[in-house]
Amino acid sequence: MSLTFQVQKKDEKTPARTAFLQTAHSSFSTPIFMPVGTQAAVKAMSPRDLKEIKAQIILGNTYHLYLRPGEKLIADAGGLHEFMNWDRSILTDSGGFQVFSLADLNEIKEDGVFFQSHLDGSRHFISPEKSMQIQQDLGSDIIMAFDECPPGTSDYQYLKKSVPRTIRWARRCREVIPENGKQALFGIVQGGIFEDLRCNCALELMELDFPGYAIGGLSVGEKKEDMFKVLEAVVPVLPQEKPRYLMGVGTPVDIIEAVCRGVDMFDCVLPTRMARHGTVFTSRGKLTVRNAKFKKQFVPLDSDCECYVCREFTRGYIRHLIKRNEILGVYLTTYHNLYFYLQLMSDLRKAIENNQLLDFRNKFLQNYFNEDI
Amino acid sequence: MSLTFQVQKKDEKTPARTAFLQTAHSSFSTPIFMPVGTQAAVKAMSPRDLKEIKAQIILGNTYHLYLRPGEKLIADAGGLHEFMNWDRSILTDSGGFQVFSLADLNEIKEDGVFFQSHLDGSRHFISPEKSMQIQQDLGSDIIMAFDECPPGTSDYQYLKKSVPRTIRWARRCREVIPENGKQALFGIVQGGIFEDLRCNCALELMELDFPGYAIGGLSVGEKKEDMFKVLEAVVPVLPQEKPRYLMGVGTPVDIIEAVCRGVDMFDCVLPTRMARHGTVFTSRGKLTVRNAKFKKQFVPLDSDCECYVCREFTRGYIRHLIKRNEILGVYLTTYHNLYFYLQLMSDLRKAIENNQLLDFRNKFLQNYFNEDI
Repeated sequence: MSLTFQVQKKDEKTPARTAFLQTAHSSFSTPIFMPVGTQAAVKAMSPRDLKEIKAQIILGNTYHLYLRPGEKLIADAGGLHEFMNWDRSILTDSGGFQVFSLADLNEIKEDGVFFQSHLDGSRHFISPEKSMQIQQDLGSDIIMAFDECPPGTSDYQYLKKSVPRTIRWARRCREVIPENGKQALFGIVQGGIFEDLRCNCALELMELDFPGYAIGGLSVGEKKEDMFKVLEAVVPVLPQEKPRYLMGVGTPVDIIEAVCRGVDMFDCVLPTRMARHGTVFTSRGKLTVRNAKFKKQFVPLDSDCECYVCREFTRGYIRHLIKRNEILGVYLTTYHNLYFYLQLMSDLRKAIENNQLLDFRNKFLQNYFNEDI
Repeated sequence: MSLTFQVQKKDEKTPARTAFLQTAHSSFSTPIFMPVGTQAAVKAMSPRDLKEIKAQIILGNTYHLYLRPGEKLIADAGGLHEFMNWDRSILTDSGGFQVFSLADLNEIKEDGVFFQSHLDGSRHFISPEKSMQIQQDLGSDIIMAFDECPPGTSDYQYLKKSVPRTIRWARRCREVIPENGKQALFGIVQGGIFEDLRCNCALELMELDFPGYAIGGLSVGEKKEDMFKVLEAVVPVLPQEKPRYLMGVGTPVDIIEAVCRGVDMFDCVLPTRMARHGTVFTSRGKLTVRNAKFKKQFVPLDSDCECYVCREFTRGYIRHLIKRNEILGVYLTTYHNLYFYLQLMSDLRKAIENNQLLDFRNKFLQNYFNEDI
């Protein structure tokens, strides 16, 4: 088996559950957050930092790695794990999202997508088969089917044509990837904010019996309640015994809400990107440490946090570093933010195990939207 | 006593020696290299990284810290050690070098120097007394006298007027700093490449009985052989039982040559600055890891190095990170370079202890200028 997934504990009041997920490289408990390592590195973090904050699986971006340094170079190095010195699990996306959002899109054909690199304008073609080949060269543990990622504003008519193509592409991906190989291929449910399209897509993908299912194309501009409605519609359709992965989501609150709706896996650039802009997540909400009011606050970013950064450094010092563009400042904010996300996941797992998920959510929200930071 | 310095072993063939230096915060063996932490951070390195590579003392820049965040803020935080979470020794320079090299210099008066900030053009005045006050607020273990740092090209006539002023300023600094306080004040020998000016300056400063002596104004454009001639002239004049600090020097080879001429302490931005440009120091010379030829070299930066970076990452991966402007790339090259420098100092100390300093130097040079990197 490319991947095993065993549900451990089902929450009594919500579709949330904890589970044990095993890939070719490592095993871990879900719900889980995957730090994003776009270019074969989680920005500012070394592999040992990631292990220290208990990261179990990270995400790599196929589009970026295909363009630079190229999947063949990474294959020469022995695969992405070896190249970046990360021996736990890696999930790679299909490249689809970036082709549709970053690149200059030239044409979508039945066969695949023609686009120009956002870096140098060079022309490229990615098909489902090409995406599979790249991800095979990368050697990631979980690979994603190549899908069309239409804009969040796409209307029903457009999606009604787009979703069936995504399903046809998923079938072509499934044909390339051996069921008993080391890599597990996840299908991606699309369909915008339309529950019927989403459910039909899920049902059709399930005929291909993927070892896991992602929900894509959310958190791209639609209203929060639409995102949650989609989850509430799709999750009951998806198989109980397979992991559910909500792609690219989200804020701490989004993640809690999605866990309460039965999602097992998450990735998002927010904690690393916000860190680079000097914003950190704390148990009392977001804190923009650049702000002048933190200049003389010689207290931790989050006095409830037990991470290295909160144990050893102050808001005033980190503000100074961020204002001076010191790399150490970005390192400290990134470290803290990822720790905060991973600790949140750990807290969510514990809450599910103790049948206290909704209590945990309520307390978290109460604290998080506290004015006094 | 503000500082104790005990010579442990004198080399038989050169003026080199090992010694044991104790400050208010920590004690360590010399010869030593001090990583530069200009803005209250050694670029890209956390305090625990610095401890891992066995840094014992770091350098802070008074000019930068005075401008931003201001020495009063740092004093509010409990001093520079507390502010940046570094509990080993800190040496701060006097601000002189930066006032004369970075700032827009307005006027040098007997009382002090008027200048405009290189950041915002704001007007400032630093005198010997002001430099002492700033360094007292910073609370560093070793503080430097405020000196004039004339350009490396200054002629004899100019220096003949400048050096006596530097000596008068040193006397004023000495009057501010209590001999038995926690901070040790070093005098700075100036005099360009002129041996008589240097020796006279040293002798006059020695009347003030500083706990240590620096040699400033070298490695600023003069020929290497002039730098070494100055060291050969000044070191025998300076007291045997006091530390000698060669400011802002230099390359690994410079440091070895200066140790062989009796220098005990060094600082330089080279290892950190070169790292940010993707150049690393190895036992076989400098290596510009950005270069295309390293693309597929999945071997360590330096196969003779035992640092974290060389144990865990390859040239090909680090090249990719540096080319992509990944912060992790700068972290890895910085970590390695500082480790390389500190390991070199450790090797030099061992060589002195074993009476093998010149052998060590010869072998190092043979390897370092090897073509095959």
